[in-house]
Amino acid sequence: MSTKKVIGIDLGGTTAKFAILTVDGEIQQKWSIETNILDEGTHIVPDIIASINHHLDLYDLTADDFIGIGMGTPGSVDRAEGTVIGAYNLNWKTLQPIRQQIEEGTGIRFALDNDANVAALGERWKGAGENNPDVIFITLGTGVGGGIIMENMLLHGVAGCAGEIGHITVDPEGFACTCGKVGCLETVSSATGVVRVARHLAEEFAGESQLKANLDDGQAVTSKDVFELAAKGDVFALMVVDKVCFYLGLACGNLGNTLNPSSIVLGGGVSAAGEFLRSRVEKYFRQFTFPQVNESTVIKLAELGNDAGVIGAGSLALQFQD
Amino acid sequence: MSTKKVIGIDLGGTTAKFAILTVDGEIQQKWSIETNILDEGTHIVPDIIASINHHLDLYDLTADDFIGIGMGTPGSVDRAEGTVIGAYNLNWKTLQPIRQQIEEGTGIRFALDNDANVAALGERWKGAGENNPDVIFITLGTGVGGGIIMENMLLHGVAGCAGEIGHITVDPEGFACTCGKVGCLETVSSATGVVRVARHLAEEFAGESQLKANLDDGQAVTSKDVFELAAKGDVFALMVVDKVCFYLGLACGNLGNTLNPSSIVLGGGVSAAGEFLRSRVEKYFRQFTFPQVNESTVIKLAELGNDAGVIGAGSLALQFQD
Repeated sequence: MSTKKVIGIDLGGTTAKFAILTVDGEIQQKWSIETNILDEGTHIVPDIIASINHHLDLYDLTADDFIGIGMGTPGSVDRAEGTVIGAYNLNWKTLQPIRQQIEEGTGIRFALDNDANVAALGERWKGAGENNPDVIFITLGTGVGGGIIMENMLLHGVAGCAGEIGHITVDPEGFACTCGKVGCLETVSSATGVVRVARHLAEEFAGESQLKANLDDGQAVTSKDVFELAAKGDVFALMVVDKVCFYLGLACGNLGNTLNPSSIVLGGGVSAAGEFLRSRVEKYFRQFTFPQVNESTVIKLAELGNDAGVIGAGSLALQFQD
Repeated sequence: MSTKKVIGIDLGGTTAKFAILTVDGEIQQKWSIETNILDEGTHIVPDIIASINHHLDLYDLTADDFIGIGMGTPGSVDRAEGTVIGAYNLNWKTLQPIRQQIEEGTGIRFALDNDANVAALGERWKGAGENNPDVIFITLGTGVGGGIIMENMLLHGVAGCAGEIGHITVDPEGFACTCGKVGCLETVSSATGVVRVARHLAEEFAGESQLKANLDDGQAVTSKDVFELAAKGDVFALMVVDKVCFYLGLACGNLGNTLNPSSIVLGGGVSAAGEFLRSRVEKYFRQFTFPQVNESTVIKLAELGNDAGVIGAGSLALQFQD
């Protein structure tokens, strides 16, 4: 049994979160730093290296105490080369040789993958996925992303796009998406998507509703407002939530019909609506799956919150284990 | 390098096809026998064993010349136990201990999987899939089935339903399916599904069309007829083909958005329509995929025809290689 540890890093546009974990995925130390995206993001990797080395000193640890470092990052990841490109919220427009820099700066082996995939690995390993071989994770945030683990393998696809659940077409005549096509799940179930659905349905709704009144009044309405008003019984807000859950249930249903994972795990900001959301997604999931999938695949809520990223990132480093 | 061979068996309701293959997937011998489904299918496995032993004698081979036997079968497969249940076109209603029987009867190790998965393995290995790590195979026949290979692994899912592409919901308000739900791909793109779409659209079509005339006349119309009339320029038949390809393109698009395989391979009887079908599916696939998938995943026609099953089955036996 190795008593060595791993380091997990969850790099985002606002903060970089760090954790030191055991090989069983238990977090022993956790900290974070601000992400400095100035000067085309050139400070980011040096800041990460300095922070790791500083904390190893602090905890009286050395590079030899670690199997490796794993990191989840925005942008397009080349896992074989250990590079990232096109992470616009980090100001990384050109190719970033992350692995080379971090391995040189810390003396510890390094692996990386994209942030949604890494969160999926975390939820599958230590969260709602219960370490099952087949788990799908969907993150409902500003955008909609995801990661797919099947037969104990994270799926990437030929160009690294596997798991881009947000761009499943749920309505061939739906809203235009930033990706250039129409009717993507993201357009109707991200935080902004929920509000988009509300504004669209408001045009045809004539009854009594606080949500409708707020929209008509030109107030800033958030996805959280929609779910809160729905939970209070606002008829129009319930219609909006039902429509959002119809689309999520359709997408989850087709993921189930195609991949039959043991669970499809809903995470991200929108999933803060909790059981209120989950039960409604499940209703449509059941409608859109055939019997054997209906009986074997379940819809769950994520359990790790913000820790999913660092835990999943840490698991990437286990590939370096002897 | 092993000079040992493998045996692949493609078991169907009408015939069982056999092949002796090299470890590189080259077919050296090929034969078939009728499937005798009488007496609750109790003759099937003994017939298979007798046929294998007979052909080994014929070719002067012994059990020692083989790494293993692989078989694709209808029904629900328990790969760990080597059993099949619920293969109704074989009259197998109760649990069949296939592996035990075949290993005892031949002295050769045995592995099995379901027929659609095995055909997918074949097309991926030696056919249109070009042995890429990520390939999806869709068989458009009496039903619609499929198999998904990602990261060089055949995906099964928690209850073995992964790859059941025929039950992707392509129209939440569509036709009732034999599976119990509504709007499955199978209801609109299997051989009977194509005709169903034709009958449905015929109700609203008023122009000149041989296909419409044949339908109105109560003639027996097949999927092949629809594609042949469409290729001859029949306006209504072209409408039907367009609708079928819309649904196929939507399903393939979402498989692409989710899994980003290098290719999605169309096989089975309906795919005999060839490039006429493929190009139209591709048109809608392009409409329903986001740019990176659009650029990296391609729609192809199957290349192995009836040999896909025995070749894929043979590949199952490679797991026994030293």
